[in-house]
Amino acid sequence: MRFFSDNAAAAHPKVIEAIAQSNRLDTAYDGDAWSARLDGAFSALFETEVRAFWVATGTAANCLALAALCRPFGGIFCHRDAHIEVDEAGAPGFFAHGAKLMLLDGPGAKIDPGDLSAAIGRIRKDVHQVQPHALSITNASEYGLAYRAAEVAALGAVAREHGLGFHMDGARFANAIVSTGESPADMTWRTGIDALSFGFIKNGGLNAECLVLFKTELADEIAVRRKRAGHLSSKGRMLAAQILALLEDGLWLDNARAANAAAQALAGAASDRLAYPVEANEIFLRVTDGEAAGLRAMGFDFYDWGPGQIRLVTSWDQDGGDVDRLAQAIAAL
Amino acid sequence: MRFFSDNAAAAHPKVIEAIAQSNRLDTAYDGDAWSARLDGAFSALFETEVRAFWVATGTAANCLALAALCRPFGGIFCHRDAHIEVDEAGAPGFFAHGAKLMLLDGPGAKIDPGDLSAAIGRIRKDVHQVQPHALSITNASEYGLAYRAAEVAALGAVAREHGLGFHMDGARFANAIVSTGESPADMTWRTGIDALSFGFIKNGGLNAECLVLFKTELADEIAVRRKRAGHLSSKGRMLAAQILALLEDGLWLDNARAANAAAQALAGAASDRLAYPVEANEIFLRVTDGEAAGLRAMGFDFYDWGPGQIRLVTSWDQDGGDVDRLAQAIAAL
Amino acid sequence: MRFFSDNAAAAHPKVIEAIAQSNRLDTAYDGDAWSARLDGAFSALFETEVRAFWVATGTAANCLALAALCRPFGGIFCHRDAHIEVDEAGAPGFFAHGAKLMLLDGPGAKIDPGDLSAAIGRIRKDVHQVQPHALSITNASEYGLAYRAAEVAALGAVAREHGLGFHMDGARFANAIVSTGESPADMTWRTGIDALSFGFIKNGGLNAECLVLFKTELADEIAVRRKRAGHLSSKGRMLAAQILALLEDGLWLDNARAANAAAQALAGAASDRLAYPVEANEIFLRVTDGEAAGLRAMGFDFYDWGPGQIRLVTSWDQDGGDVDRLAQAIAAL
Amino acid sequence: MRFFSDNAAAAHPKVIEAIAQSNRLDTAYDGDAWSARLDGAFSALFETEVRAFWVATGTAANCLALAALCRPFGGIFCHRDAHIEVDEAGAPGFFAHGAKLMLLDGPGAKIDPGDLSAAIGRIRKDVHQVQPHALSITNASEYGLAYRAAEVAALGAVAREHGLGFHMDGARFANAIVSTGESPADMTWRTGIDALSFGFIKNGGLNAECLVLFKTELADEIAVRRKRAGHLSSKGRMLAAQILALLEDGLWLDNARAANAAAQALAGAASDRLAYPVEANEIFLRVTDGEAAGLRAMGFDFYDWGPGQIRLVTSWDQDGGDVDRLAQAIAAL
Repeated sequence: MRFFSDNAAAAHPKVIEAIAQSNRLDTAYDGDAWSARLDGAFSALFETEVRAFWVATGTAANCLALAALCRPFGGIFCHRDAHIEVDEAGAPGFFAHGAKLMLLDGPGAKIDPGDLSAAIGRIRKDVHQVQPHALSITNASEYGLAYRAAEVAALGAVAREHGLGFHMDGARFANAIVSTGESPADMTWRTGIDALSFGFIKNGGLNAECLVLFKTELADEIAVRRKRAGHLSSKGRMLAAQILALLEDGLWLDNARAANAAAQALAGAASDRLAYPVEANEIFLRVTDGEAAGLRAMGFDFYDWGPGQIRLVTSWDQDGGDVDRLAQAIAAL
Repeated sequence: MRFFSDNAAAAHPKVIEAIAQSNRLDTAYDGDAWSARLDGAFSALFETEVRAFWVATGTAANCLALAALCRPFGGIFCHRDAHIEVDEAGAPGFFAHGAKLMLLDGPGAKIDPGDLSAAIGRIRKDVHQVQPHALSITNASEYGLAYRAAEVAALGAVAREHGLGFHMDGARFANAIVSTGESPADMTWRTGIDALSFGFIKNGGLNAECLVLFKTELADEIAVRRKRAGHLSSKGRMLAAQILALLEDGLWLDNARAANAAAQALAGAASDRLAYPVEANEIFLRVTDGEAAGLRAMGFDFYDWGPGQIRLVTSWDQDGGDVDRLAQAIAAL
Repeated sequence: MRFFSDNAAAAHPKVIEAIAQSNRLDTAYDGDAWSARLDGAFSALFETEVRAFWVATGTAANCLALAALCRPFGGIFCHRDAHIEVDEAGAPGFFAHGAKLMLLDGPGAKIDPGDLSAAIGRIRKDVHQVQPHALSITNASEYGLAYRAAEVAALGAVAREHGLGFHMDGARFANAIVSTGESPADMTWRTGIDALSFGFIKNGGLNAECLVLFKTELADEIAVRRKRAGHLSSKGRMLAAQILALLEDGLWLDNARAANAAAQALAGAASDRLAYPVEANEIFLRVTDGEAAGLRAMGFDFYDWGPGQIRLVTSWDQDGGDVDRLAQAIAAL
Repeated sequence: MRFFSDNAAAAHPKVIEAIAQSNRLDTAYDGDAWSARLDGAFSALFETEVRAFWVATGTAANCLALAALCRPFGGIFCHRDAHIEVDEAGAPGFFAHGAKLMLLDGPGAKIDPGDLSAAIGRIRKDVHQVQPHALSITNASEYGLAYRAAEVAALGAVAREHGLGFHMDGARFANAIVSTGESPADMTWRTGIDALSFGFIKNGGLNAECLVLFKTELADEIAVRRKRAGHLSSKGRMLAAQILALLEDGLWLDNARAANAAAQALAGAASDRLAYPVEANEIFLRVTDGEAAGLRAMGFDFYDWGPGQIRLVTSWDQDGGDVDRLAQAIAAL
């Protein structure tokens, strides 16, 4: 019974079906009929004109965006626990040619606007210190918290005041949207986001994420950078097809709802052990080593997350019986 | 009737089937059961111990290899018409941090060992001139010629003499193997190749290529560089599954045989118009603008390739009737 | 009797004196009184508002300019024999993060506007091929030819038409100005130059060159890049002092006049052996190996420059007697 | 009366004299007679065979060393207050192609071996997290503390255990040597240092630092990287001459002794206000805003260093009367 990662879950059957359907000769790269529909589909979803680029991984989406928002000699604010800082092997430094990640603290891997302002204030405005060019936040956060649109807007105001580009790592964007009930538009460009890494792989996709540009004047540059990073697939239609399948009839929302609901069921059984509020599909529990061992002995798979803490992640296809069993086991600890 | 690119062809049904079969929960990234079989499968094929890494594009395979074989301050010899020079948006400069491509001429996009030696000899051995660190060849070449193992060995000898890493871009490796009848081992590590970009996408695959390391001590570095470039897919099993499907029962060779045979059928009808010998699945024909227009009016799709020349490419799934019709049309010009 | 390089000549006594005079406590980096005078001095010289940055080497001046004029994913046109291509250890690729040098031919290391246009025309306007962002020329050229302002303007028109930044490597700018009689303004910004590497080191300076920006909006970026490349000297006043000493009373022009005159004296004695017209302070002579050996046996130092050719370079402090002796020796060959 | 930076002080008269003496034709770059003496001079000083490279700035020395000790995909441990992190405009990320600085805390900008071990232990050994390749310490530290050889050795042991290269930023190496009485050999290679940025500019030099390699197999690479970064001066003899002048008769030690003594005189008058022990030539004092204003009104120049703290720096040429006056003023606060 696996609760270790949404990353490793199966893709939704409609995604596999879409790949099969897209498997016929078409123009190579992103000149095909499927890829051509992306801009329109995302523009409709976000209620504004956007440019949408499929890529194969979240790291690629994040770092292409950051490279376009931050010159090589600039800095990017992010949380100390951000995926781009902790889990991408230094990819931001690679894609952005040595640009510097500037780390902020904050509970639950969320950034506070006041902390951001203060950090900017501590940087001398001279050539000796790296000047910030961009801000990146993760929504839902690495600890399963969802920024509300108003919170994003407050950060966006600071970013705008200081001329920072604003990126959202939305590896679990769907979970955040479902959790907060905010509209995709309110959560992004209306609150100042320039570029969104819109995650599908953790939410029923196979290997397609989408980089959505609200700052559309970056589109030409992103297209070149994507190719230059080896991310322009010649049969890109199979990436577009996955994304379109998940957008259709709101499948992406259904999947996220299922994952979030499973997380809520677990949270309900463990309210006194929660390290963070459960707002998306991740649950962080305080347990003893013995308790963790006990759960594992019962067949539950999950990661340790520092001393005395474990992480449970639920997926779009999480088995309901497994969730019930785990909820009971936690309650019985 | 399309003869413009093997790049855009459909994937083989067994590849799609393999993707569907691999679509269940497993360990993420390359820890899954499919990915774990790659080293063994390629070691068997190449009759030596190798390390094999799936990646999503040929550009990624090429440039990860080059970055490992050439320090940022070094140079990489390649042909002036090499894909890495002409069609990868400067990706070698990106992945290898500003390393320099050093261009050689030679008919049919093949490199002559004497020309390579001469070029090395012209470089002053001082800090002012970039020193070469690596050599990259394409087999089959960008003009559809296949290096024989002995030719590769002659280049390998020069490379070894000067301490150059040796990379083969095998986007059409299958076509070269079928064309020459050489063994994969003879064509690669036995003649000095350190790293091979083994192409599957143009030969029935969907979006999986394989970087095969004969210089296995580079494996740890490649693993890190792959992640850092955003090329470590979380559901990598779907990439491994494609590759394994094509290796099984020699499907990769069957596919290449079909493509090469179609090319030979066209070449036979156009022997007096061939710009280069046809040894793989590409045919370059001298035609007038009027003749090209005539062929297009008959429904044949292909690219112009410089003035007075067109390129025809055949794929693993090329329709036999289309080939016959084009052969007749060319013969009738 | 040395004719091998102006690079290795002594500095002018006034330069040494200026260093000594600047040697007292002042604000560090470029906040000192000497550095503060550079913008004004060069703005007066060029008859327009410019920004001027001292750096320690010509390579630094060139590559800082190129990094500001060319994004990492772009290309820079230059001559195949340009210093940035041949003699800077790949520094453009380093400073500009993998940007590509795009090589042009042309007699005497000069670029022809028609050739430039044709080269631009051959590049497909897609994401697969590197798109040009900048053009760099060397004046006087690596073979001692001086572009006239009209020639620069013709190149500038092509650059402007295609949105290319335009850089001039003026390691021997003084020699070109003296040779052509053009004004500094006509030779640069009036004909489209955005940034000039204004050379002093080969012309009586010790270790100070000046990067002059006509496109002044790049100044902030250049200031940061200079620091980031380790080129912001804490006692930068000693660099500024050298430059100011050479600008004062036209010393830079006097020095170049002396070097050019020495070159003319040699050229006059060797008119039937000249590989290129002598327009600055370099002379390329066709000689046999025996003749070269004979000259060396008489005590003359110079470089071989390919088979059957030698290079002679004259400096601001070239001994007149040495020049006469060499002229006679050449005439007597 | 200036106490704001040793960076901005005058050069020692013997340094200026040496520059003048070296000002005659010689071989260019580092082929001259002065540069040729460096390896020997530093090998004698360090009692082992070293390779020594002049460069124009401490940033260049530091970052060339780090680029050679850390691959682009690796990390470099340093203190959060290290010059390379705080004051070099991201130069390590530029020179080392996106390598990551990994920050450690510790009083007085010194790193504790236990903290280092713990930080290494927290990094997962997988491809998702940047793996450390190097360690850099500053001696004397940014807060004027001097590591003892035994402390360096303890760090060196950790570095060796984990395969980390070990770099010392010795911008104030002379002050540390004088302060501790350790031998240069004990302070560096005998305790595990691979590369030392040996500072001269803050200690009587003008614009020459020396990168000393104990790991001599990096010499060829450093030579190339220096050129590629635009740091190979054509009249490098003037840099070598400065260094040799300071090494001669221990002038570098005399200068540091003078600066340290001045610092001690100030420290003696302010013992109850010291934020850190005074072990080199920097004094950090706790003062109120009013007290700082009072000192400035009396003509003393210095920097504020965070709220309620000022930094005083003494130089080799600090006026004794000024020191006495400042000591009295502080005592009278």
